[in-house]
Amino acid sequence: MLESLFRPKKVAVIGASSKELSIGNRVIKNLIDFGFKGDIYPINPKADEIRGIKAFKSITDCPNNIDVVHMVIPAKFVPEAVEDCGRKGVKNIIINSGGFSETGPEGEAIEKDFLARAAKYSIRILGPNCQGIINSDPRIRAYCNFTFTKPEPGFISIVALSGGVAEVIHQGFAAMGVGTRIYASNGNACDVTIPEIIRYLGQDDGTRVIVTYVEGLRDPANFMQTVREVAARKPILAMKAGRTAEGAKAAASHTGGLAKEDLATDLIFKKAGVVTFTDEGELIQAAAAFATQPIPRGNRVGIITNTGGPAVIATDVFVGAGCQLPPLSEKTVEKLKTTLYPEASVRNPIDVLATGTAAHYRACMDAMLADDAFDCIFVNFVTPFFVDNESIAREIVAVSQLQRKPLVCNLMTDRQQWSEVVTILRDGGVPCFSLPGEAARSMAALVRYNTIRTREPGELKTFSDTDRQKGLSILSEAKQAGRRNLSAEEVYEILAAYGIPTAAWRVTANANEAVAAAESIGFPVVVKADSAAVVHKSDMGAVAVNLADADEVRAAIDQMQTTLAADDLRFLVQKFMPGGLEVILGAKAEEDLGHLIMFGLGGIHVEVLKDVVFNLTPLSTTEAKEMLAAIKGAPLLKGVRSRKGVNRGRLEELILRLSQLVKDLPAIKEMDLNPVMAFEDGAVVVDARISI
Amino acid sequence: MLESLFRPKKVAVIGASSKELSIGNRVIKNLIDFGFKGDIYPINPKADEIRGIKAFKSITDCPNNIDVVHMVIPAKFVPEAVEDCGRKGVKNIIINSGGFSETGPEGEAIEKDFLARAAKYSIRILGPNCQGIINSDPRIRAYCNFTFTKPEPGFISIVALSGGVAEVIHQGFAAMGVGTRIYASNGNACDVTIPEIIRYLGQDDGTRVIVTYVEGLRDPANFMQTVREVAARKPILAMKAGRTAEGAKAAASHTGGLAKEDLATDLIFKKAGVVTFTDEGELIQAAAAFATQPIPRGNRVGIITNTGGPAVIATDVFVGAGCQLPPLSEKTVEKLKTTLYPEASVRNPIDVLATGTAAHYRACMDAMLADDAFDCIFVNFVTPFFVDNESIAREIVAVSQLQRKPLVCNLMTDRQQWSEVVTILRDGGVPCFSLPGEAARSMAALVRYNTIRTREPGELKTFSDTDRQKGLSILSEAKQAGRRNLSAEEVYEILAAYGIPTAAWRVTANANEAVAAAESIGFPVVVKADSAAVVHKSDMGAVAVNLADADEVRAAIDQMQTTLAADDLRFLVQKFMPGGLEVILGAKAEEDLGHLIMFGLGGIHVEVLKDVVFNLTPLSTTEAKEMLAAIKGAPLLKGVRSRKGVNRGRLEELILRLSQLVKDLPAIKEMDLNPVMAFEDGAVVVDARISI
Repeated sequence: MLESLFRPKKVAVIGASSKELSIGNRVIKNLIDFGFKGDIYPINPKADEIRGIKAFKSITDCPNNIDVVHMVIPAKFVPEAVEDCGRKGVKNIIINSGGFSETGPEGEAIEKDFLARAAKYSIRILGPNCQGIINSDPRIRAYCNFTFTKPEPGFISIVALSGGVAEVIHQGFAAMGVGTRIYASNGNACDVTIPEIIRYLGQDDGTRVIVTYVEGLRDPANFMQTVREVAARKPILAMKAGRTAEGAKAAASHTGGLAKEDLATDLIFKKAGVVTFTDEGELIQAAAAFATQPIPRGNRVGIITNTGGPAVIATDVFVGAGCQLPPLSEKTVEKLKTTLYPEASVRNPIDVLATGTAAHYRACMDAMLADDAFDCIFVNFVTPFFVDNESIAREIVAVSQLQRKPLVCNLMTDRQQWSEVVTILRDGGVPCFSLPGEAARSMAALVRYNTIRTREPGELKTFSDTDRQKGLSILSEAKQAGRRNLSAEEVYEILAAYGIPTAAWRVTANANEAVAAAESIGFPVVVKADSAAVVHKSDMGAVAVNLADADEVRAAIDQMQTTLAADDLRFLVQKFMPGGLEVILGAKAEEDLGHLIMFGLGGIHVEVLKDVVFNLTPLSTTEAKEMLAAIKGAPLLKGVRSRKGVNRGRLEELILRLSQLVKDLPAIKEMDLNPVMAFEDGAVVVDARISI
Repeated sequence: MLESLFRPKKVAVIGASSKELSIGNRVIKNLIDFGFKGDIYPINPKADEIRGIKAFKSITDCPNNIDVVHMVIPAKFVPEAVEDCGRKGVKNIIINSGGFSETGPEGEAIEKDFLARAAKYSIRILGPNCQGIINSDPRIRAYCNFTFTKPEPGFISIVALSGGVAEVIHQGFAAMGVGTRIYASNGNACDVTIPEIIRYLGQDDGTRVIVTYVEGLRDPANFMQTVREVAARKPILAMKAGRTAEGAKAAASHTGGLAKEDLATDLIFKKAGVVTFTDEGELIQAAAAFATQPIPRGNRVGIITNTGGPAVIATDVFVGAGCQLPPLSEKTVEKLKTTLYPEASVRNPIDVLATGTAAHYRACMDAMLADDAFDCIFVNFVTPFFVDNESIAREIVAVSQLQRKPLVCNLMTDRQQWSEVVTILRDGGVPCFSLPGEAARSMAALVRYNTIRTREPGELKTFSDTDRQKGLSILSEAKQAGRRNLSAEEVYEILAAYGIPTAAWRVTANANEAVAAAESIGFPVVVKADSAAVVHKSDMGAVAVNLADADEVRAAIDQMQTTLAADDLRFLVQKFMPGGLEVILGAKAEEDLGHLIMFGLGGIHVEVLKDVVFNLTPLSTTEAKEMLAAIKGAPLLKGVRSRKGVNRGRLEELILRLSQLVKDLPAIKEMDLNPVMAFEDGAVVVDARISI
């Protein structure tokens, strides 16, 4: 557990310095200025005191039971210093210095060295090349960090490898006047990891919401597992950067190759129940709402304003984010009409007018609290000089503190002129924003978390009519033969072993065999050339469709024998199945994580419109259903005007069987079922390939 | 011209009040507090002075040559007061009071009344039901407004009907420490309009960028014309709210039905060269960059940072916005390697490290100024305690003031602790943001404006091989006959009159005639029932395709005669044209504005995927080209793998001919060419309808 790291009582600084502008001095200054509740031991062989605190010659001379040692010394001295700390019984070391794995092989060797020594003494290392931690708990007040943003106590904890972005986020909260709880930036993360910190924050009662930023995941399976457990109890808000190829390159340059492809991280976030953001501002603003507001039960928002336009902007944002703005009930309208000014607009949004009073605002908020049609309350509040704005602010606070339905406030004011209003709302824990769009998005994030939290998990089906042994033996045979692509026969046998229906097929060596096969399958047929050299069949003239009789089969095979002329050339004869809807399924191995599963419509939908969706194995029944619903062409699956729909249950089953197949057979690197022809009464694979 | 409204020398207040919390008092306080350079005349029948300024019994008693009169009196007294102002020679009246057209017919009558009187005396009216204006020009300092946000002088002017949103935007600038120039919110806008104010701001030398917010356009043609002229010289940044159906409803409730459908406004903005936003925060942040930075020549951004992560976020935003991050030239790399720390990352983004100095930053900025590969400079600047941040800030200011390439700065700091850095950057006119995403989006907006400003206008082609008279006479005949839908024959004749090719056709009365027609056109043919009652032909069994011989034609017609049985039933026989790519063109009249022109792919692309684009008549050659390129399925037009492309030049021509057709024949309400079959060598309309 990281208790002693995040709640230290004794902190030593190896490399403590009298020089004002050094990190070894700043860390001590920060601890003092922030009011650290424990003891500080500057360590410096020459100084008697640093910043008025008694200094020690070495760690050995310090009192025992040191929780955290900062190391602010050149990399090459670190292993020996870690050894000293070990002998002293130090529990945790924050290595602020750089010069380790981020710089190349030499630094990497030093990192390995000190890590081995730390392990020997069960010391936990934060960093190296990191900022450190902050805990604003009034009983702790540990500022073990050399940065400069001093937080007020709060309920939001921040964790990120990237010190720069952790700092940006931290500054964002400070600028909003929103307090934070724990801050941790672990740089190279050679020992204490992000998932481990997230797990700790999940158990820290003072943390109500966890905010994290990633550029890539080092140990995605562990990340997913941990985050999934924590996110079920406590909201985790996350942003992933390096989303574009260029961004990933930029990320790689400063974190030493951490950034992986974007897709898998997004899917991990989704599967783990993380509330994701692509904009750091939205992340910050959302966290401010999570810090003090309850999670809504649904997506229905009531808006109260004293000026029109900003409510229009908020409405656009809410609707764009999938929220609803239900009308007021007749009863509520009648009641408010007697309370508000006659010119007030008594609908949703309610406009109490600029002259609206505290009593008016309160009546509207009470009405929305009482009305089951509303899950959330959005208040837009401009501070005209001619009303008692402080009273309005106090009513907003009172309703927020009931904690019955979440409330956010867009406060339109001059924060200097109306500082008392600002203070009332801030001290009252009302999430306050300066733009209606920001306020609305923060509330929409609360709704999003509720949707995630209450989503139907579905079932992780395991089909028992499958034959894993068969699959394994085919793969091992291909592997032994050094083949990367399976033959058509092998592919179809694996599909059969997993109950994935394929159009009737037979592999043949020549025209005579092919004709015989076609006659037994029944015309019309398709003939496909099968050879290790032929991967994209239709581009290579290796497919002939809709062959109606023996002559056509012979002609097609003649042609292929001439153009392809491969030694291992054989011919797959298959039932021709026109008239269905072409769909495509695929799987791709993701290192340390399982497989990506792809689903989409075939033909131009995949080629031109890229209308495909992905998810990660293992897939639940709910996830399979979601994949079908998530493509843009989803209405085609249900049927459109004169076109009939297809059997979606069968497609869902195919997705689940594919998920089980690649989970059982992890050697499969890539796999395409393309196309699968879907009909009203089922779905049949007509072409497929597997590479290992 | 609005010179006397925006640069008043003498301001009177009818309804001036001694009561602190009244608008009639506040306007005077605001004028005084803001340091108005002219004279103030409070008008109050009972008071001798208001706020220490001599009051007058009536407007008649005031000195002459009054530029602006505020009216803060009940609506019913306004017409008479306007009359008094007229006799006095007042130039402009700002009517702050409400109670006019926004309240219903009674108020509307009063509005008409005072408007007629104002016209008689050539008085211009701002409002009623409005905030008023502000001009921060140090020679004027007119705060003719009852709100409370006091701007520093600056280069951004704000104009909007909605006082609430104008105020939100204004507060946004104030919070950023960004000055503004002119502020105008004209409420009901019964006389002085938004386009008129925009035209004035276009001519105001102190205004470098115009910011506006709309919920709908009252006089779209005039708006487009004005804005187009102004935007060619000066950036106009605009946001449209009420984008969602719910938002439009909310807008309608507070502006009395101003909001129109969203689409046309977006197209007007685009055509007029407005830089558009859907988020008020982005709008504000962009304007801050426009206020002090030159417009870049291209989209290539160089990033300099002293901490990694925020540059990754910025990179993502830039790439997402269509900007490029070119690599540094080898020469630049060599040069910077000798200047920066050895561990610095000398690529784009350049990471000078947290220890990077002012000289390092300057060397990087100079390199990017000198390197033709870069159009814009993005600086990310965290203020570590161990470097001389003020010097860094001064170098950033120096480069910004060269005005050679635009520069924006994401400043990561505690604005209290590093107030001197903030002041240096602010006074130096550097656009400073607190989040990398915000800073990057503001720069991307500069790039967007450059793209708009330098776009190829294209040509407004007029085809001379058209017959407008023919079209007019067909329409007038149909109108006289009281028909809303033209017959197939009429539709095809109009198309022919505009050189729009259709599949060979003939209208016939019965099976015999149809067979004869088919034989002359050549089989296979399509037969379509033609009757005023049949609108959606294919849904009503009124189309039979691919008829190969006379028997099939007869059978189809028998069937239609049975099922449709309309008195006016006739049969269109048309050449069957399979194998092309189905596209769809359409036109729809927009009140006061011309027509919307639609283009898209046919079939499921339009039905399911809604893959269509719109523009407004008259269309230029460039716009027609853009429409083809803008659909998601655009690659299908060019050809994909085995599918051949189509003749795009012919499709562009069809779009332009359609644009000319509806412009010549404005009585056309709606028109569909659906489908048009496009081939490698041309495109042919195979079905069409026109309603008037």
